[in-house]
Amino acid sequence: MVRTDSLAKATGQAQYTADLKLPRMLVAKVLRSPLPHARILNIDTSKAERLKGVKAVITGKDGYEVKWGVFPYTQDHAMIPTDKVRYIGEEVAAVAAVDEETAMEALSLIEVEYEELPAVFTVEEAMREGAPLVHDQYKNNINVHVHIDVGDVKKAFKEADIVLEDTFEAAGEMYGMLEPYAVLAHFTPDGYLDIWMPNAGPHVRAKALSNLLRLPLNKIRVHHINSGGAFGGRSEISPGDFVASLLTIKSGRPVKLVYTREETSIATRQVHDIKASIKTGAKKDGTIIAKEFKVYYNGGAYSSTGPIATSIPFYVYEETYRLPNLVYDGYRILTNRPIRGMYRCHGRAFLAGNAMHMDKIAEELGMDPMDIRLKNGIRTGEVTATGSKIISCGLEDTIKAAAKKSGWKKKRGKLPPYRGIGMGSIAIMCGFPMGFRSGSSAYIRVNEDGAATIVSGVVDNGQGNESMMVQIAAHTLGIPMESVNLVCSDTEVTTHDPGAYSQAAAFVTGNAVRLAAEDARDKILTAAAEYMKVDKEELALKDRMVYVKKDPDKAIKLTRAVRYAMSKGHHIQGYGTYIPKISFEREWVKNPYGQMAGTFSYGTSIAELEVDPETGIVKLLRMVVAHDCGNPINPMAVEGQLEGSVAMGGTATILEEHVWDGGLQLNSDFLEYKMPLSVDMPDIDPILIQSMDPEGPYGAKEGGLTISMSAYKAIANAFYDATGVWLKEFPYTPDRVLKALDAKKAKS
Amino acid sequence: MVRTDSLAKATGQAQYTADLKLPRMLVAKVLRSPLPHARILNIDTSKAERLKGVKAVITGKDGYEVKWGVFPYTQDHAMIPTDKVRYIGEEVAAVAAVDEETAMEALSLIEVEYEELPAVFTVEEAMREGAPLVHDQYKNNINVHVHIDVGDVKKAFKEADIVLEDTFEAAGEMYGMLEPYAVLAHFTPDGYLDIWMPNAGPHVRAKALSNLLRLPLNKIRVHHINSGGAFGGRSEISPGDFVASLLTIKSGRPVKLVYTREETSIATRQVHDIKASIKTGAKKDGTIIAKEFKVYYNGGAYSSTGPIATSIPFYVYEETYRLPNLVYDGYRILTNRPIRGMYRCHGRAFLAGNAMHMDKIAEELGMDPMDIRLKNGIRTGEVTATGSKIISCGLEDTIKAAAKKSGWKKKRGKLPPYRGIGMGSIAIMCGFPMGFRSGSSAYIRVNEDGAATIVSGVVDNGQGNESMMVQIAAHTLGIPMESVNLVCSDTEVTTHDPGAYSQAAAFVTGNAVRLAAEDARDKILTAAAEYMKVDKEELALKDRMVYVKKDPDKAIKLTRAVRYAMSKGHHIQGYGTYIPKISFEREWVKNPYGQMAGTFSYGTSIAELEVDPETGIVKLLRMVVAHDCGNPINPMAVEGQLEGSVAMGGTATILEEHVWDGGLQLNSDFLEYKMPLSVDMPDIDPILIQSMDPEGPYGAKEGGLTISMSAYKAIANAFYDATGVWLKEFPYTPDRVLKALDAKKAKS
Repeated sequence: MVRTDSLAKATGQAQYTADLKLPRMLVAKVLRSPLPHARILNIDTSKAERLKGVKAVITGKDGYEVKWGVFPYTQDHAMIPTDKVRYIGEEVAAVAAVDEETAMEALSLIEVEYEELPAVFTVEEAMREGAPLVHDQYKNNINVHVHIDVGDVKKAFKEADIVLEDTFEAAGEMYGMLEPYAVLAHFTPDGYLDIWMPNAGPHVRAKALSNLLRLPLNKIRVHHINSGGAFGGRSEISPGDFVASLLTIKSGRPVKLVYTREETSIATRQVHDIKASIKTGAKKDGTIIAKEFKVYYNGGAYSSTGPIATSIPFYVYEETYRLPNLVYDGYRILTNRPIRGMYRCHGRAFLAGNAMHMDKIAEELGMDPMDIRLKNGIRTGEVTATGSKIISCGLEDTIKAAAKKSGWKKKRGKLPPYRGIGMGSIAIMCGFPMGFRSGSSAYIRVNEDGAATIVSGVVDNGQGNESMMVQIAAHTLGIPMESVNLVCSDTEVTTHDPGAYSQAAAFVTGNAVRLAAEDARDKILTAAAEYMKVDKEELALKDRMVYVKKDPDKAIKLTRAVRYAMSKGHHIQGYGTYIPKISFEREWVKNPYGQMAGTFSYGTSIAELEVDPETGIVKLLRMVVAHDCGNPINPMAVEGQLEGSVAMGGTATILEEHVWDGGLQLNSDFLEYKMPLSVDMPDIDPILIQSMDPEGPYGAKEGGLTISMSAYKAIANAFYDATGVWLKEFPYTPDRVLKALDAKKAKS
Repeated sequence: MVRTDSLAKATGQAQYTADLKLPRMLVAKVLRSPLPHARILNIDTSKAERLKGVKAVITGKDGYEVKWGVFPYTQDHAMIPTDKVRYIGEEVAAVAAVDEETAMEALSLIEVEYEELPAVFTVEEAMREGAPLVHDQYKNNINVHVHIDVGDVKKAFKEADIVLEDTFEAAGEMYGMLEPYAVLAHFTPDGYLDIWMPNAGPHVRAKALSNLLRLPLNKIRVHHINSGGAFGGRSEISPGDFVASLLTIKSGRPVKLVYTREETSIATRQVHDIKASIKTGAKKDGTIIAKEFKVYYNGGAYSSTGPIATSIPFYVYEETYRLPNLVYDGYRILTNRPIRGMYRCHGRAFLAGNAMHMDKIAEELGMDPMDIRLKNGIRTGEVTATGSKIISCGLEDTIKAAAKKSGWKKKRGKLPPYRGIGMGSIAIMCGFPMGFRSGSSAYIRVNEDGAATIVSGVVDNGQGNESMMVQIAAHTLGIPMESVNLVCSDTEVTTHDPGAYSQAAAFVTGNAVRLAAEDARDKILTAAAEYMKVDKEELALKDRMVYVKKDPDKAIKLTRAVRYAMSKGHHIQGYGTYIPKISFEREWVKNPYGQMAGTFSYGTSIAELEVDPETGIVKLLRMVVAHDCGNPINPMAVEGQLEGSVAMGGTATILEEHVWDGGLQLNSDFLEYKMPLSVDMPDIDPILIQSMDPEGPYGAKEGGLTISMSAYKAIANAFYDATGVWLKEFPYTPDRVLKALDAKKAKS
C-alpha cells in the first residue's frame, strides 16, 4: 500500500518549514554562547539594532519571565537565559533582518560581557561534593532521581544461584534527523501567532508557547507541515520556536529561522550518555529473581524530557521480563553540555547490559539464550513489576520467528571465529501516561459525493501515521483511500492528540479515528436503513455501496444514503474520542506504579555480524527483526519502520558517538559524526507478528520501536558470540574493539 | 461590537486573492472575443506556446466536455467555448507565463479565426421570430419562463374598482464589488486542486469545479480568503476559476489570474435589464385583488442563476403583500451581451412599478400610501400566494417606525415643489430552497483552557458573517469573543453550508452554530454536574465560570469542567446541523409552490429627495430605513448593512446604468460608470426592528437586503411626490428626468 505522502516526497515537491515563504518575511539568526558556563553581565545590542536592514533584536529580557519544563517540577528553561549561559551553543540573543548577510553582520555587532564560571561536563564531575551547580535548584546537579522498589531485592540476591555485577556505558549520540531545524513564525495584526516547525505534537507545542508567550491557547496556531524525522528529539518546545516568536512579535513581520546542521546538532536535542551498573541474580533453572540497577544519565544543561528519559529504559525492560524483586535508581545529572532528551532507542547501554547478563547466565547454565528469554519473558494477562497488565503479547512469537528465520539453532556458538550471532528482545508502551491529555479525538465528515475528510490531531514525522489514519477510515467506511482526506496537526483546526513521540499513533489516535469512522458509518447505515426500509443491522458498507449482507444485490449507492441523510437535516459527521485505560495517578518519577499504557508491543532482533580483528571494524551482516504490532495496518509501512529502527539502534551501536573537548562538541556535522550510510546497512529480514490486540484499532499497536532497542542488544550479544568478549562500552568503534580484543588476548 | 475582521481590514493588512503568492507562481492572462457572436473556426496557439517564459496555453479544447449550469436544465456553459463566442469579452484562450508582460505578449501571438454571426442585444431583437439563437436549445432565446398562477385573475380584474396598467424599465447595472476578480489555483503533485478566489459559497464553488474538471470533490480545496463584496455576483463559478485551474493542471505550477476592472465588469457577472408590464386591480377600500405581471429580463449570453433572477423579484413581492389572484410570467431572454446574474437589489423596475401602482391607487382613493401598505401588508401567521407560511413579520412595525422617524405625515404631499418624500416596503427570504443542500452544519471544539474553535462553512463577503458566528458561540458558551476562533469557508475542513448569497447566514448558518455551541455547552454542564455533584439543570455558564444558578458563589472554572471531561475520555466537541423547514419539492421554475424559506425579513425605506428642474439632477437628501432582522446579533453590523443597502439600491436608482453600443459595453470602469460616491450619499437613519423570530438563532433573521430593494421603490415614489411625474424608466439620470418633466409641462 503506497503511502499518501510518498509521491510528493519522492519527487521533491513536499514542502518543509525551510521551504516556506511569507510576504515580507525576515531572516533570523541566533547568537550563541562560546562558553559552557558563564554569568551574563551585560548584552549591548545597540549597534546591531542600528544596522540597516535589521528589524528586531531580542535577548532573554524580551521574554515574559516564564520558565518552561515538561513537568511541573522541572521548570527551569527560560528558553533564552537572562542570568547565565549553561552550555556552549546556548542562545544568548537573536536578530531578524531583511536577509541572511545582514542578520549575520548584526550578530557580530552584539556585544556580550560574560563572567566565566567553572563548568562540569561528566556525571562524575557534576555529582562531586562542592561541584558548581548548573541550576541552583538541583542539589548535586541531580535533575531527577527515579527510585523504584519491588519485592525484596536483598533477600532475593541471597537466594540467587548466580549473581553478576557489571557496569555498562554508552556515549551520547546525535538524533540525526535529516531535516535540520527550522521555524517560521508570524504574529498577525489580529493577534494570532501562526507558526510552522517540524514537531511531534502540535498541541503540546502550542501549550508551551501559550505559557511562554502568555498568549491564550486559541491565539496560537501551530500549523501542519511535513517533518523530516523526529525520533524523540522534536517532542518539546525548542528555544528556536521562542526566538522566532519573539522576533515576529517585535518586528510585526514573519520571521524564519533555519538552523545549520551544527546548530541542529548542538542546539536542539541530543541523546544522553548512559552509565548503568547492573546486578542480576538468577536461579539455576534460569529464572531471573533479583535485579539491582543504578543508572546515570548525562542530561546536559536543562531538564527537557528528563523524567521520561530517566525512567523509560527501566519501564520497557520490566514490560518484557518478569522481575519479582528489583530496585531501580535512575539519576539524570545536569552538566554544562547541550540538552539531552528522550530518544527512539531508549536505554542503550542499560538494555544491552541486561541482555548481556541474560546471555551470560544462559551460558553459565548451559541454556540457549533463546530459552532463557522464553522462560523469563512476560505473557498475556500477566502484570509488570510496577503494575501494568499486559493485554496482548507476541514476545514469544517474535523470539521463535526470528530464531527460525535466522537459523539461530544452527549458528549460535557455531559460527567461525570473529563471526557471531546474538539476540535481544524488548517491549515498548503504546502511549505515555499524560493525565487528562492522554486521549485523542477525531472527527470525520462524509461529503455528498461519498468522499470523506478526517480531522485529527495526528502528527506524521515520516513514519506514515497520516497514511495509517486514512487507511483506517477508508476501510471502516468501505471507500477507497483516495477518497479520504486527512486534515491534521493544526492546532486551530484539529482535535487534541497526545502527539507522535509517545508511540501512541496507531493505538490511541488510530482508535479515535476508527471510532469516528464507525460513528459516521453508523449514521450512514441509519439513513440507508430508513431509505431502504430494512433494519440497520442487515446492512454493511463496501466499495461505495450500502448493501444488505444477506442479499448483496439489494444495495444503494453510498452517495444516495448521504444525500438522503442531508435532506433530513443530518449531515454525516462522525466523532470519536479514545482514552487508553491507564492509571491517571501514575507518574514517571513521583508515582511509578499502576497501569502505564493501554497496551505494549514486542520485538526481537537477531544480529549476525563479523569483527575484523586487525582493524577492529564490526560489520553487520544480517538482521532478522520480528515485531509484534498487533495487526499491521500497512505492512509495507511497518517494515519500513523496522528497517529504520535497524539503522537507528543497530548501526548506532557500532558507529555513533559524540566526541567532546570539555563542553565543546567536536563532531556536530555529518562529516565528522558517523551516521549509518547505506553501505553500513546489513541485510534485513523483517517479520511482522500479529497478536491482534483486543483494544487496538483492528488489533493494531505500535509499529517498530522495539527493533531499535532490541537491535542494540542483539549486536552486543552477537559481538560476544563472535569474539568471546563482553564489550561493555558503546559504541563498538574500532578503538574500543581492538582494546577489548587485546585485553582478552592478554588474559589468555 | 467591533467585528473580528475590522482591524486587519482597516490597517490594510487583510489579504485578498490578488495579494497571495505561492512559490513558482505563474501569471495568467485571458484572450477575449472582440465579437458579440461568431463561430470559432480555428485557434492557433503555436506561436504563443513557443514564446520564452510561457508555461501553458489553453483553449476550450482543454476542457472536459462538461457544460455547467446552476440548474440541471440550464447547463449551457462550457466556461471556455469550443463552438462559438457569444459576447464581446468572452473567454477564448488563456496563457500562464512567468510574468505579466510575457503573458500579454503571448496573447497577442494567439491567432483566432472567427466567422461572424448576426447578433441580438435586446429582448425584443432576441425574441423576434427567426432571430439568431444564442444557444440552440433555447427556442426564441427564452432561457427560462416562470409562470405562476394563483386564484382567478380574470374574474378579479372584473371585480376591481380601479385598474392600472403600466410598463416599467430599468437598465442593466454593474455589481461594482470593490475587489476586482482574482483567482489563484494550484494543482499539487498529489492531485489536489488548491484554489482561492472571492466567493460567496466555497462548497458550491467546489462542486462546480468537481464537475467541470472531473475531479472528486475531496480533491478540491477551496480555501478561505477575504472577499471584497459579492452582492450576488460571486455566487456561482466563473470562467476565470476554470481557466486558472486548467492552466495549473497543464503547467504543474500555481497560476494567478487577476482581472482588470474592465474584465471584472464584463467577464464576471452583470445585473439584468428589466422590463416589467404590470396590471393592478384594487377595490375602492384599497385592497389589492388582482395582479398581472409580464416581466422580461435581459440575461446576456448564458444561464447563470437565471431561474433565481427570473422569479425572485416576484417572490419577494408576494412575501410582502397579500395577493389573492395573480398571474406572473417572467422571461429570461438570452442575448449576445455579458452574463447577468442575481443581484442584491432584486427586481428594481418591477418592484418600483408595483410600489408606484400602490401609491397611485392610494392617491386615487385619497388614502395615505402608508395606510394602503398597512392594509395589504402580510402578517405573522399568514401564507403567501405560493404557499409560504410567515412565522415572524415586522413589516407593520417597519412602516410605522420609518414613518414616524421621517416625519411622514407632516411631509407627504406637503413639501415644496421639487421636493418629495416616498415610501417602499419589501420582504426577503432567509435562505434559498436548495433541496438536500439547504442546511448548514457546524462543529465547536472547546480547548482545555476554555477557548473555543468553531468550524463552519460560513462565508463572509464583508458583511460581518464571521463575526456574527463568533458572537453567537461566545454568547452561548459564556466566554468572551476573543476566546473564540472561527475556521470557515474552506471546503476541505469546513462543514457544508449553503453559502452567503441566499441570505442564509444569520438564519441557517447561525442556527447551526448556535446548535453546535449548545451541544458543547450541554457537554460542559454534564461534566461540571458530575464534578460538582449537582443536577445539570441547576447550572449555567457565564464569564468562563460554571455556576449554580440559585447559588452563584458555588462555581467552578470552565477550564476545570473541560479538563475533567477530558480525563473521562470526553473531549468537549459540539455539533449542530440546521435545515430550515421548507418544501424540498419547491423549485424556482418548475414547481414554484410550497414553503420557500424558513423565515422572511422585512423592511421599509422612506426617501426624501430634491429634483433640480433645470439640470434634471436628483439629490437624495435623507433615507429613513427600518429593517426587521428578528433580533440584531450585532446592531452596529446590521446598521452597516442598511447603509450599504442604501448605496446599492438607493443611489443606484439615480446613477447607475450600463451604456451600450450593440454588444460593446461603453462604461466598464469606474471613470465612466457612475457608482455612488460619498458625496452622493444621503443622511441615513437606520432603525432596527425586533420581531424575535421563533426559529432564528436568538431570534435573528437576515440583516438588510430589504433596504436596497425598498429604497429603490421609495425613491420612485418620492420622485412622484416631488414632481407629479411617475417616471417609469430607471435610472433617474438627468436626461430621463428632464424628458419626463418636459413631457409633463407639455401636457399641462
